[in-house]
Amino acid sequence: MNIVNDLRQLLGEGAVLDAAEVSERASGIWDPTPQSALALVRPVSTEEVSRVMAYCHERGISVVTQGGLTGLVRGQIATANQLVLSLERMRVIEQIDPIQRVATVQAGVTLQALQEAVAPAGLLFPLDLGARGSATLGGNAATNAGGNRVIRYGMMRDMVLGLEVVLADGTIVDALHPLIKNNTGYDLKQWFVGSEGTLGVITRLQLRLREAPASHDVAMVAAPDFSAVTGLLRHMDRSLGGTLSAFEVMWPEFYALVTTPPAKNAPPLPPDLGFKVLVESLGGDREADNARFLAALEGALDEGLISDAVVAQTDRERSGLWAIRDDVEQVGRDGESAIFDVSLPITAMEVYIHRIRAGLEASLTTHQLFVFGHLGDGNLHVVVQVPRGQLASLRPIIEAHVYEPLIDCRGSVSAEHGIGLEKREWLPVSRNKAELALMRAMKSTLDPKGILNPGKIFEA
Amino acid sequence: MNIVNDLRQLLGEGAVLDAAEVSERASGIWDPTPQSALALVRPVSTEEVSRVMAYCHERGISVVTQGGLTGLVRGQIATANQLVLSLERMRVIEQIDPIQRVATVQAGVTLQALQEAVAPAGLLFPLDLGARGSATLGGNAATNAGGNRVIRYGMMRDMVLGLEVVLADGTIVDALHPLIKNNTGYDLKQWFVGSEGTLGVITRLQLRLREAPASHDVAMVAAPDFSAVTGLLRHMDRSLGGTLSAFEVMWPEFYALVTTPPAKNAPPLPPDLGFKVLVESLGGDREADNARFLAALEGALDEGLISDAVVAQTDRERSGLWAIRDDVEQVGRDGESAIFDVSLPITAMEVYIHRIRAGLEASLTTHQLFVFGHLGDGNLHVVVQVPRGQLASLRPIIEAHVYEPLIDCRGSVSAEHGIGLEKREWLPVSRNKAELALMRAMKSTLDPKGILNPGKIFEA
Repeated sequence: MNIVNDLRQLLGEGAVLDAAEVSERASGIWDPTPQSALALVRPVSTEEVSRVMAYCHERGISVVTQGGLTGLVRGQIATANQLVLSLERMRVIEQIDPIQRVATVQAGVTLQALQEAVAPAGLLFPLDLGARGSATLGGNAATNAGGNRVIRYGMMRDMVLGLEVVLADGTIVDALHPLIKNNTGYDLKQWFVGSEGTLGVITRLQLRLREAPASHDVAMVAAPDFSAVTGLLRHMDRSLGGTLSAFEVMWPEFYALVTTPPAKNAPPLPPDLGFKVLVESLGGDREADNARFLAALEGALDEGLISDAVVAQTDRERSGLWAIRDDVEQVGRDGESAIFDVSLPITAMEVYIHRIRAGLEASLTTHQLFVFGHLGDGNLHVVVQVPRGQLASLRPIIEAHVYEPLIDCRGSVSAEHGIGLEKREWLPVSRNKAELALMRAMKSTLDPKGILNPGKIFEA
Repeated sequence: MNIVNDLRQLLGEGAVLDAAEVSERASGIWDPTPQSALALVRPVSTEEVSRVMAYCHERGISVVTQGGLTGLVRGQIATANQLVLSLERMRVIEQIDPIQRVATVQAGVTLQALQEAVAPAGLLFPLDLGARGSATLGGNAATNAGGNRVIRYGMMRDMVLGLEVVLADGTIVDALHPLIKNNTGYDLKQWFVGSEGTLGVITRLQLRLREAPASHDVAMVAAPDFSAVTGLLRHMDRSLGGTLSAFEVMWPEFYALVTTPPAKNAPPLPPDLGFKVLVESLGGDREADNARFLAALEGALDEGLISDAVVAQTDRERSGLWAIRDDVEQVGRDGESAIFDVSLPITAMEVYIHRIRAGLEASLTTHQLFVFGHLGDGNLHVVVQVPRGQLASLRPIIEAHVYEPLIDCRGSVSAEHGIGLEKREWLPVSRNKAELALMRAMKSTLDPKGILNPGKIFEA
């Protein structure tokens, strides 16, 4: 109670929820479990965040920073003796500079709010993901979000020009710089991007904006085998110059699933044993880009890289092709599914999927394996479905089958979702002892008392 | 002598030069001053680098790592009591994977060697700069090199997928990962890229390769005023979709200098009071890209953003237009010049140049101011020429006139060259106390004895 009162003194009555009020909140957008915490504070400014951190640092109180609660690895979960620091009231878009093409925002601004705010200036904030309406830009930076257009625009890391961060002891570090090039010593912002709230609290960001594309071409194509898929990636990337924006591959089982009732999308191409690829290009000139897109597809046909193609002619058709790829909820219709987010060298993918398939067949009776993903950037979503009620008990064995084969090919247990609590046990698959030691050294330097999101990424 | 003998025991006779032998070497490609050092070691493997570092760490011997000696800020300069660690014998291109589009190299491989090695596979390593024949990839990473095509492909940081680093105490950290997406904890490679040899020795790299462009369009255009220049940047970026690769602006005095004899290039456009811009596009389809490039220029004419344009028709003409922009040595023909490498928001550039001009006119008698640069990424090269023999004495006042106005617009004293010794005094212009404190904390964590390139970036 003292702590709640202290915090109310520091930030005002309405800024603090006590433990009972916190328990009325869900743990996440997709997780109705009630939250648990000592209290929850909702500062409105960097200065208030600093006061909270200084208070907690002095008393050794752990702090879990929350954005839009859309994370998928339980990175935002607090326990009853931790304080939640929510940035939900730091939602000011401070400036959009259309000449420098930079936005300055508070960390609680949602991704969608920024996307919409820059559109009238003919600009694009290119990060995009399904949770755009809830996910915050601070959270996107803290988790280095990926999404649908990494192949063209990079991940969140590539869009952050500068950050303001509050350190564990309340020190405000203003590393806001609106510059694309700035080689003046260590690039501090890189330390905090992707650190999942364990090194500091991101309070404000300067973000790079791009010109909004004028052309948008989408096709779904059929590739007879995996070497055709990899050949097609190179062919399209080369032929489309800098405009290839998505290269999403669906393995046959996934494609059949999302184009068979009760899924509401019909198959634009017949389901068969090959691969389906959604290819997208975003460019600056509608006619020239469309001609080039069609020519690239014709070239792929001529080279035998694809056997069939459907090219969207309208916005509705473009959305329709994407809807097939995005209908991931079908993996839950006939059972419970574990969804993974791995990345690995493209050259190792066929063997990797074969190993998972063989492993699962040897150890599980009823199950299904679905594979799809952002193949253009090496990121696969592997989905293992088991009968309802069995997932909790089978999860450890499923995780072992999915993660262990990554060791040999130097793959990653998390391409984009992060580690949080969910994958902590599996981090050594992707990171060796020397790397983990360096991470811990950094953590000790920036957060010597270990109060920032302790236990996330690695054990406290 | 003991140290030289010890090192010869560790690495073999031919791997170690003593102080006398070191003094036969020049300090840099453009600096004939003899080098000074305790000794110079030339390991051939990561394991040998590790042995050298462990030896030096135990004895508190400072180590200056050298690549191709093409740095411009004296970051590679050692003193008589420091050991030089040269990566000149670590020149193995270990693997080029044309499907994953990743190269694995030792740090001493030159930029040009890699560029040439990937070309037969239809691939491009997109970093490019004048010193490509000498500059090493390890040095490029340690200094986060920029160059001519940052607007399209980013800086060296954006091309590094993974690194192997030897720490101050000899620990080898294998953070080689061939993945575009890898959110498994802190992104360690980011700490070392741009750290100028002060945090570790980069020994091997995994680098991202791109598809080689099939089209190459270059034009030089005249823009009547600075707002036309900024409008043109947005117009071309938007119209060319993802293919704009260079946007190089020349202020009138620079353009006149490099197109007037004894400079050997004739002016393709008449010299006048406006700005000249070199625009380049690299794409995937010769005909379609050329048509789009011409249409974009026509649109710029229609909108009054440009008053004139020359479009190169042949490779020879393309090289000819670049040669004008690249003829920087003309700034030395009538005097001695200080060349700066700043970046700042585009919106602040006109006022910034005006302030420099006014400041120089008030305090120097005979001088010339030339401005040009990579405006597309906010990076300007400011050149101040004074009569021969006067630069050494005038440099402090010139630096003050160029650097101090950057404070108000949050500009950077180094867009791409780095800090080294050269700009150390001016680092506080671009970095505040909290940032500098964080940098020092990182330095103390990774190099507690302060033996790695001490005194570079900030004072030891």
